[in-house]
Amino acid sequence: MDGHAGDASALMAEIGARAKAAAAELAFAAPEAKRAALEAAATAIEACAGEIAAANAKDMAFGREKGLSPAMLDRLELTPPRIAAMAEGLRAIAAQPDPVGEVIADWTRPNGLRIRRVRTPLGVVGVIYESRPNVTADAGGLCLKSGNAAILRGGSESFHSTAAIHACLAEGLRAAGLPEDAVQVAPTRDRAFVSAMLAASEWIDVIVPRGGKGLVGLVQREARVPVFAHLEGICHVYLDKAADPEKALKVILNAKTRRTGICGAAECLLVDRAAMALGARAVAALVEAGVEVRAGSALAHLPGVKPAAPEDFGREFLDSIIAAEVVDGVDGAIAHIRRYGSQHTDCILTEDDVAAARFFQRLDSAILIRNASTQFADGGEFGMGAEIGIATGKMHARGPVGAAELTSFKYLVEGDGTTRP
Amino acid sequence: MDGHAGDASALMAEIGARAKAAAAELAFAAPEAKRAALEAAATAIEACAGEIAAANAKDMAFGREKGLSPAMLDRLELTPPRIAAMAEGLRAIAAQPDPVGEVIADWTRPNGLRIRRVRTPLGVVGVIYESRPNVTADAGGLCLKSGNAAILRGGSESFHSTAAIHACLAEGLRAAGLPEDAVQVAPTRDRAFVSAMLAASEWIDVIVPRGGKGLVGLVQREARVPVFAHLEGICHVYLDKAADPEKALKVILNAKTRRTGICGAAECLLVDRAAMALGARAVAALVEAGVEVRAGSALAHLPGVKPAAPEDFGREFLDSIIAAEVVDGVDGAIAHIRRYGSQHTDCILTEDDVAAARFFQRLDSAILIRNASTQFADGGEFGMGAEIGIATGKMHARGPVGAAELTSFKYLVEGDGTTRP
Repeated sequence: MDGHAGDASALMAEIGARAKAAAAELAFAAPEAKRAALEAAATAIEACAGEIAAANAKDMAFGREKGLSPAMLDRLELTPPRIAAMAEGLRAIAAQPDPVGEVIADWTRPNGLRIRRVRTPLGVVGVIYESRPNVTADAGGLCLKSGNAAILRGGSESFHSTAAIHACLAEGLRAAGLPEDAVQVAPTRDRAFVSAMLAASEWIDVIVPRGGKGLVGLVQREARVPVFAHLEGICHVYLDKAADPEKALKVILNAKTRRTGICGAAECLLVDRAAMALGARAVAALVEAGVEVRAGSALAHLPGVKPAAPEDFGREFLDSIIAAEVVDGVDGAIAHIRRYGSQHTDCILTEDDVAAARFFQRLDSAILIRNASTQFADGGEFGMGAEIGIATGKMHARGPVGAAELTSFKYLVEGDGTTRP
Repeated sequence: MDGHAGDASALMAEIGARAKAAAAELAFAAPEAKRAALEAAATAIEACAGEIAAANAKDMAFGREKGLSPAMLDRLELTPPRIAAMAEGLRAIAAQPDPVGEVIADWTRPNGLRIRRVRTPLGVVGVIYESRPNVTADAGGLCLKSGNAAILRGGSESFHSTAAIHACLAEGLRAAGLPEDAVQVAPTRDRAFVSAMLAASEWIDVIVPRGGKGLVGLVQREARVPVFAHLEGICHVYLDKAADPEKALKVILNAKTRRTGICGAAECLLVDRAAMALGARAVAALVEAGVEVRAGSALAHLPGVKPAAPEDFGREFLDSIIAAEVVDGVDGAIAHIRRYGSQHTDCILTEDDVAAARFFQRLDSAILIRNASTQFADGGEFGMGAEIGIATGKMHARGPVGAAELTSFKYLVEGDGTTRP
């Protein structure tokens, strides 16, 4: 438990080897066994709600002592409804179709060879997260569902809560006869263990960081293992001249105000120069809803609006603040988003199919939305049941990362004594 | 063009920026334009066959001076049929369906949101290859087809040949009105440029190394950019007790002897202890075909067989040599392949569906084959039209990497003023 990097690496190797062995078993575990494990874990969480709450109380006391902000403490707290929600979440994951073995493609060659492409787990998934202890259940459950072993490293503030939740997952695995090492938790608060995980390409196939820009940036910079992540969600909403006013106002308000602290919240409103009247109405509605609007020069004269500083564009406020700017039509919006966006989620409000097609084709954000709120950027809302995070990279996984995105594939080829000429 | 790493990085940044700008254009280029470019490039290769041959003659002279082996010189040489084959290859790629914009999935949520997952290019592909100059046409063509800009770094021995072929690709791009920077060739023989490519995560989205174990190992160790590759093809053929003798003998011979120098060639024969008589026939057939059989103790007494050294297992001979060992049934074969395999291509010969299913389920090679030759491990044989290489990693691409595997995807979401509750 000390801070020496060598010790962290040795510990990582030990945990990694166990994870790899468990992953080899889990890769062909029966779907029913994985489902049973998830359901038993859900039951265990309900049965152990008291123990989990007691462990969480220790973490809360430690957090208060450490002087965590009220927002951090709120994320750390496990109330009875939050504990119940973890159990529900595991049951929802259990109820999903099993991705492993799914036939993605199936074709037969002229020589009679039948080729199938089937899903197979990635192997070992490392999850590094901050204060929310419920990620232990969500991420552990999703990895198990997709046949991957998981190594979970929660925030040091949530050490006891994480351990209590992990005990329930382990109980589920035992009950279903699956290897307990399928879900392991870092047994140390030592920060060096995070560095050891980021370097553990021998043991870990992919790292998923869950947390603020500081954590994600560190992981993206330092990881020698592939990473599924988004650094920022700088989501734009472009109000086109052909927008339907009522739909547009509703969507703009929802995209900014439904929740301001999530990655799918709108951070910048782009107004078509040919839609200034509607743009002014949208800005007024935002101001009335209590949003601080920081606008470029052509909108800055509107009542209640502050002038934008250059750094307000391309900025993730995660707060009740929005940047606003005037652009020249859809091409102006595309140019602005290419310059300032983060390839997370961007929206066009228009009834014009040509403008929408241009926006969809020329931008390359993970999620492009027409006439709907950016706050739909979420695995649950996409119908994936659950997500381990949202990725903006272009390799392997993109957008909400559900169980299917935690798989790779292999080709199964069947012949009849077939030889190659 | 000197050897300073700083100069290579600056050159890389310049080429990378141009590639990135071209990629942004190429991402929404019309399928017809890309097809026209590929066809015009094919025509240019035919028209310039003389110039290409002359450039190749310079490289051959340089290669002889440098003392390249006959095998290397053979790979370097561009005969008239090989030049014609490059043009054919480009036309075959042109004729394939365009992967970009393909709708991979399409569903509608209960709230009316329609979600489509569509293919989009990866961005910029770096290809690092050794002596074969024809990779310039194949890889450049496949990148163009998939909407990716390419940065090609051929072997220093093939410098002039590569430049001549690249000129034809550039002519095709110009003829189709596409940015010429879509396919660029490293303008230097400087080895430091390879290192600069491997570090260029700002400009390059994926690196594909094509060549021997030395090159691929270097790239895998040093790249800070994702890599699609296989280090070795240690392909196993397992002869099960329920194998059909005639099919089995035909497949074993084809898997080893059709071509011995390709990654899909069999390197190890595993004989079920319950099929020793058939195993002995297979070994005799291999010996008769001129193959050196290096066998474990239970087979070493057979006529013409040499005893295997421990290092003969898990070894890629790429030659007319095969290791052979006796195993206990399908589980013995699985254990052996897990220990010695390279997750490339492994084969089971059996009429027993249960044994085949176990082999398919418990192994996780990129390609698993039943009753057919391992030499089918090839994008063309899979029906992909062409491949840029074969990957054994589990992230993103696996097995033969064709145009579709050189794409990522984005989600297009359409609502009707839809807000999230």
